[in-house]
Amino acid sequence: MTAAIEFAAAPFRAAGSNIVCVEMKDGPAGIVTESELLDAVAPMLSYALAVEADAAAFVIACFGDPGLHLLRERLKCQVFGIGECGVLAALARGQRFGVISLLQSSIPRHMRWFGAMGVHSRLAGDRAMGLGVADLKNRDAMFSRMVEVGQMLKQQDGADVILMGGAAMSFHRAALEAELEMPVIDPNFAALTWADGVSKLR
Amino acid sequence: MTAAIEFAAAPFRAAGSNIVCVEMKDGPAGIVTESELLDAVAPMLSYALAVEADAAAFVIACFGDPGLHLLRERLKCQVFGIGECGVLAALARGQRFGVISLLQSSIPRHMRWFGAMGVHSRLAGDRAMGLGVADLKNRDAMFSRMVEVGQMLKQQDGADVILMGGAAMSFHRAALEAELEMPVIDPNFAALTWADGVSKLR
Amino acid sequence: MTAAIEFAAAPFRAAGSNIVCVEMKDGPAGIVTESELLDAVAPMLSYALAVEADAAAFVIACFGDPGLHLLRERLKCQVFGIGECGVLAALARGQRFGVISLLQSSIPRHMRWFGAMGVHSRLAGDRAMGLGVADLKNRDAMFSRMVEVGQMLKQQDGADVILMGGAAMSFHRAALEAELEMPVIDPNFAALTWADGVSKLR
Amino acid sequence: MTAAIEFAAAPFRAAGSNIVCVEMKDGPAGIVTESELLDAVAPMLSYALAVEADAAAFVIACFGDPGLHLLRERLKCQVFGIGECGVLAALARGQRFGVISLLQSSIPRHMRWFGAMGVHSRLAGDRAMGLGVADLKNRDAMFSRMVEVGQMLKQQDGADVILMGGAAMSFHRAALEAELEMPVIDPNFAALTWADGVSKLR
Amino acid sequence: MTAAIEFAAAPFRAAGSNIVCVEMKDGPAGIVTESELLDAVAPMLSYALAVEADAAAFVIACFGDPGLHLLRERLKCQVFGIGECGVLAALARGQRFGVISLLQSSIPRHMRWFGAMGVHSRLAGDRAMGLGVADLKNRDAMFSRMVEVGQMLKQQDGADVILMGGAAMSFHRAALEAELEMPVIDPNFAALTWADGVSKLR
Amino acid sequence: MTAAIEFAAAPFRAAGSNIVCVEMKDGPAGIVTESELLDAVAPMLSYALAVEADAAAFVIACFGDPGLHLLRERLKCQVFGIGECGVLAALARGQRFGVISLLQSSIPRHMRWFGAMGVHSRLAGDRAMGLGVADLKNRDAMFSRMVEVGQMLKQQDGADVILMGGAAMSFHRAALEAELEMPVIDPNFAALTWADGVSKLR
Repeated sequence: MTAAIEFAAAPFRAAGSNIVCVEMKDGPAGIVTESELLDAVAPMLSYALAVEADAAAFVIACFGDPGLHLLRERLKCQVFGIGECGVLAALARGQRFGVISLLQSSIPRHMRWFGAMGVHSRLAGDRAMGLGVADLKNRDAMFSRMVEVGQMLKQQDGADVILMGGAAMSFHRAALEAELEMPVIDPNFAALTWADGVSKLR
Repeated sequence: MTAAIEFAAAPFRAAGSNIVCVEMKDGPAGIVTESELLDAVAPMLSYALAVEADAAAFVIACFGDPGLHLLRERLKCQVFGIGECGVLAALARGQRFGVISLLQSSIPRHMRWFGAMGVHSRLAGDRAMGLGVADLKNRDAMFSRMVEVGQMLKQQDGADVILMGGAAMSFHRAALEAELEMPVIDPNFAALTWADGVSKLR
Repeated sequence: MTAAIEFAAAPFRAAGSNIVCVEMKDGPAGIVTESELLDAVAPMLSYALAVEADAAAFVIACFGDPGLHLLRERLKCQVFGIGECGVLAALARGQRFGVISLLQSSIPRHMRWFGAMGVHSRLAGDRAMGLGVADLKNRDAMFSRMVEVGQMLKQQDGADVILMGGAAMSFHRAALEAELEMPVIDPNFAALTWADGVSKLR
Repeated sequence: MTAAIEFAAAPFRAAGSNIVCVEMKDGPAGIVTESELLDAVAPMLSYALAVEADAAAFVIACFGDPGLHLLRERLKCQVFGIGECGVLAALARGQRFGVISLLQSSIPRHMRWFGAMGVHSRLAGDRAMGLGVADLKNRDAMFSRMVEVGQMLKQQDGADVILMGGAAMSFHRAALEAELEMPVIDPNFAALTWADGVSKLR
Repeated sequence: MTAAIEFAAAPFRAAGSNIVCVEMKDGPAGIVTESELLDAVAPMLSYALAVEADAAAFVIACFGDPGLHLLRERLKCQVFGIGECGVLAALARGQRFGVISLLQSSIPRHMRWFGAMGVHSRLAGDRAMGLGVADLKNRDAMFSRMVEVGQMLKQQDGADVILMGGAAMSFHRAALEAELEMPVIDPNFAALTWADGVSKLR
Repeated sequence: MTAAIEFAAAPFRAAGSNIVCVEMKDGPAGIVTESELLDAVAPMLSYALAVEADAAAFVIACFGDPGLHLLRERLKCQVFGIGECGVLAALARGQRFGVISLLQSSIPRHMRWFGAMGVHSRLAGDRAMGLGVADLKNRDAMFSRMVEVGQMLKQQDGADVILMGGAAMSFHRAALEAELEMPVIDPNFAALTWADGVSKLR
């Protein structure tokens, strides 16, 4: 997952931006359940509080946006979640967005979050690949499944833009866009774009 | 706060229901911030897991519904949050509900939660009394302020039902209803109603 | 139909609540059309006015909620409709509810009612079994059809909670929940829960 | 009230259309409550069934649209309600409509109906004049109050089109439009327009 | 296309209304793209300004409603778009409308327009026939495809009223209604109805 | 106006990005009306087509987003409108956004655009300063009026983030944020952020 975030960060670094990707060693290994989302918050908060003076902005690189409003409450600088930024980026690339999610069990949580964002009328559909965090390592199998699910979102649900619903999919964005012939949003890149913009104001 | 919940529980106990009100000693003293919401979850979860075999249902008696979906994920029995149940009860008593909140800073969180529930078109308004958890002890001052805010919700925002937006206001429900001449919902009572119903199925 | 309501009432009676199920002899035999909904109102109103002094609350046990706002206007005590209460109960058990209806012709009416409730963004789908009131007597055939329709709501429409869209289905709730592996709401039980709660305040 | 409907019908009659305004002698004298709405339905239905062969379309000239879906179910020809047609006409003349209603007690009913129509995001506000059906006879006082309420809808609620929320206000449309300097919709005229159009297809 | 509009205008003319159908010679041959929509505006505006003194109302007979708000800004008389009027007419004939569109590429534009109208909760679906403007000449093939798409809207999307999403389909309305056994709205007829009504007030 | 855009572009240029601000000499002097919006499109399109090979992305620096979807249709590279990007940026900084607009007459257009974006449930209010394009030159008077309107959006409408509703207000962002004690979004900066991000992918 960190490799995917590094991949998304590379173009910004190439242009001179200073982006630090940090893995929370005391956080959960993967984040799928509500419990894991909760457990991810405290490590991020203590890290962010420790380095806040040196940062222009923080990105929470988990599609569930754990602790987003808590970190916003506690930190002076801006905090971006890849879930929120991914959705907002999708809204500027198509009229109805489709989400490729890893697991069915995350979809009710996405629905609550999209409802909190007030964007349900723009959602074409959210479909799960039925893959766990462990399956993410097999990139070819993952890509095939992303294409299948993306086609369903396009043809059955009427999506005209696809949002990759996870932090570990960045590698596949360009190829998926070519395959599906429609814009594909990488939420890591979306959040990094906003954080990078904010850093210019420092 | 626990006294208010005991007050709301009394009619159910009088009818023979067994309701245990537990204060989380290792939880935060009051719950106003996002951090305090987070800190409230772990103690509730461990308590609930410990007594789950003996319970028909759990009620999370904090209007912010901390850990609601996490507890639902981890427990087999039903879990009710007073925020969610309070809103749903209000929907059956009027067409547009007004919320009396303690603090302005909680309102964006309420808005996200109402959005996740998908009920924004039913919301007349959410107005803060500007009182902290500490002010809750002065019942007379609190009641006067509730009447003021309730009148604004009725006359300026068009509310035809009032939802008391906190766990510590149960004592005031009947008097407020008489004063405002419109239905007033106690979220503690709403959640206890549902938990009590579920307990009949055991 | 009255048997189903008696079934739903049994757990409350066992706990000591006094629930009277009354069949309106001068009402329509079944309620499917707009005309039958209208014809159901006057008998209910005159019954309710006659016994109001002895009642803590009334439940209108027809999924179309005939006369709900009229009875609320005319009676001092609270009135609950199983349609409204069923929907609200479903909102607390899942993120997107699916409705199993008897007839296709009722669905536009449900859509208007769900719109009036403001809950459309929470609706996964409403699908008809294509059964008439007469078919309700064959419980096995009815259950098989409920399972079929429930599976479609789950798999094609993304429902994570099912609402049984009629007053005569209470018998099937537990078995359907086991079969579909997701929460199933009996609207009779939902409305009785709320009426039972209100009765504690008397 | 019938005079107002005759007033709205005059331009269509002048162009050759045959419009019959019928007062329901066995209906309620005025329609303000839910009970009166209910009582209005049966007389309209029996009248409409009796003359259906001679009619191209029916208009229900009460802003609450009593029996609209019931008459649509029972009659072969098209049925229009002035409430529904008035709202739809307003949507084509401005972006956010304001409603001038007679009584505060009707507003929750309007909110349910606007919700069933799915148009809440287009509603600027609905404000009551606080006048009863009896006050309608004093045309000058009524007009002054309509101007006051219309100004509030325009300036405080942001309405850019006004819908007169009753069947008895047709006389005031042109003067109100001049006074408020914004489009004003007469719901009688709106419904008659649609019925007149349908009659051309006969 | 003009023939279709003439067809829709015939019943009004037969009743004595004076309707002039004008083809914009300096406009685009067909209107499918955003560029063609833009190019359609200036010719309509200069025509309308030239004849404004003689007109009671204007109808823009293109489903994309090009220049609707611009013409409303520049002209004193009322301006109707067939897209907007078609949608509003559909709302009075069914609870969830389905749209038969020519091309997939127009659907995101429709979605933006329906969103601006605030009617998304009433939309069952919008499906394209996959036919270009050129295909409109083969009336039989077009009708067969309309029936196919209409059946999908009815059976898969739950539409209970169909809106023909183009200006050139008027000929097929009655036959399509018979075939699909549900109301079918001709947007040309809808807009002409409103314009005809306004003309009575002159 | 161009000076404001240059101001917003400066931080990106300082970081090495190549941003060209071009004034459309053959476009309208200011853009307030629907006609001016239309007239702005053709010059932008021909400019963009001419330089497309050298551009990573285009920004349309007018809050009305003229020609946004047309340019997206005609150009291969990404196109951003400051209206759309400003709204989306506001959604990530607060729960309910307030818009400071120049003129009352633009607000219905904003409402249509916010409706097309599907974000009405997130809008606190849109209030006009009542200033024309000419008044923008008096920066002090403009700032005072922005503070007044911002306070109304905060206190009366409940906004927790402010969106400056025009291209010429960039200079005031930081001071307004300090004065209002809440986040203030410059739509120029928002769109430039996104365009700058996209340019990294080239």
